[in-house]
Amino acid sequence: MDSFEEASIDIKMEIFEAIEDNYGGVIVNMKKEEPMDFLKFHSMLKASISHWRLKGKKGVWIKLPIELAHLVNAAVKEGFWYHHAEATYLMLVYWIPHEIPHTFPANASHRIGIGAFVLNQDGQVLVVKEKSGKITGTWKLPTGVVDEGEDICMAAVREVKEETGIETEFVELLAFRQSHKSFFGKSDLFFICMLKPLNFTINKQDAEIEEAKAKLGFSVRVRAKGEDKSQGKRVKAAQVAHPREPSRLVVVTTAHGEVHGGEAVAPQSFPKLAASS
Amino acid sequence: MDSFEEASIDIKMEIFEAIEDNYGGVIVNMKKEEPMDFLKFHSMLKASISHWRLKGKKGVWIKLPIELAHLVNAAVKEGFWYHHAEATYLMLVYWIPHEIPHTFPANASHRIGIGAFVLNQDGQVLVVKEKSGKITGTWKLPTGVVDEGEDICMAAVREVKEETGIETEFVELLAFRQSHKSFFGKSDLFFICMLKPLNFTINKQDAEIEEAKAKLGFSVRVRAKGEDKSQGKRVKAAQVAHPREPSRLVVVTTAHGEVHGGEAVAPQSFPKLAASS
Repeated sequence: MDSFEEASIDIKMEIFEAIEDNYGGVIVNMKKEEPMDFLKFHSMLKASISHWRLKGKKGVWIKLPIELAHLVNAAVKEGFWYHHAEATYLMLVYWIPHEIPHTFPANASHRIGIGAFVLNQDGQVLVVKEKSGKITGTWKLPTGVVDEGEDICMAAVREVKEETGIETEFVELLAFRQSHKSFFGKSDLFFICMLKPLNFTINKQDAEIEEAKAKLGFSVRVRAKGEDKSQGKRVKAAQVAHPREPSRLVVVTTAHGEVHGGEAVAPQSFPKLAASS
Repeated sequence: MDSFEEASIDIKMEIFEAIEDNYGGVIVNMKKEEPMDFLKFHSMLKASISHWRLKGKKGVWIKLPIELAHLVNAAVKEGFWYHHAEATYLMLVYWIPHEIPHTFPANASHRIGIGAFVLNQDGQVLVVKEKSGKITGTWKLPTGVVDEGEDICMAAVREVKEETGIETEFVELLAFRQSHKSFFGKSDLFFICMLKPLNFTINKQDAEIEEAKAKLGFSVRVRAKGEDKSQGKRVKAAQVAHPREPSRLVVVTTAHGEVHGGEAVAPQSFPKLAASS
């Protein structure tokens, strides 16, 4: 028995350094400063998986910086699959206990969009025409995508400033909508934010915006008046503006949540919103 | 002149078939059924980029199924970087006009979580204790992550059913919160949904749930009473339950949006919510 144990020391394999997570898994952060050839990576990976299996580990995460792209295929050959990628790295995963299904957490599933509802003292709404994309030649609310780590309300203020030069202050959230299969199979949450303008001189951005103006009685289309169960009755205007679906481009709600409008609201019937006071 | 043009025909290179997008870019969908070796892929990629550059194209997208993982490095060598990945494929991008910054749309940036507020006719709240994760041994609302393509309200109903066996019906959205740097640098939107129970016999799920019960006067902690500017005043309880931050685990709002509670609400002062009627 003793001689067997001593012999086993001689064939010790090199294994990866790993951090343990809270769910019985391990995380390997490969360093771009420590490049490795394909064969060494592949054999260390095999040895490491055996080691982790003996230790009863479940999920294995390997983070490969893009500089180590030559190692991706070695991990895939060992049964790893992709979990997610960002510009600078690829995250691969492997599930050791084949008898039970994996419990890896889902990747980010939604992109968050904003539409800005900016109303001046005359009850005019700030609208733009975009140069490219699916909707061109149509007046629409300034819209955009929330940046990584950005608050929804700040994204609305930023987009209005970028597209039109107007400085604004966040007032409140008017409505939001969830839609699916919007890009690469992912979903969208689109939030309409009411903003108060702090200056009134439009200075449109040339790269993306064809035209920008404050329009009185901006023609609105409302798909459904009243409540939408999927988003809860607190948020009454659930079918809201969406840059990719012109047919339900804009819903207007008052600051109290009631939906106003129809297929095309005439200027004189355009609701005076509370935020303009 | 003519002889030059004729000569150029003889050295025509093979280029990739590509779909044009709405933004002056091209998309190449590599097929796993048509495997290709590294060198052929690499030379076709070089020739294709030259071709697209001459055509004035901007962004190039290449979707590589995981079966073609051996080609990842060839694209990276040509200057491609990762846009996103799902379990079965990696999407790489390249920007041709180096003199202007790229305008590739952002990848999905948020994961959407739900917390279920299920109240029975006696005003008891359904709570669970989880077996693993950051919060164990603490009573909490059933929580979970919205699946790809799933509506927020349906995710809440599904999680309650999975964890406790209780069938519910979505009533309304009580509150939501946005948090950042929550996983892999991504953000979280967490929605508290009010649900109406349709049966009252708890049948907890053994894999994840330690204990489940309906508790009267579930002790609540409220971080901020009143409005939170970042989420808008319509949604009054912006500091809401979050599975990873026990210190602000639960906010309780009435069906009318007012925040009730404090550091620990005693059972007798626990608000009777409108949905229980």
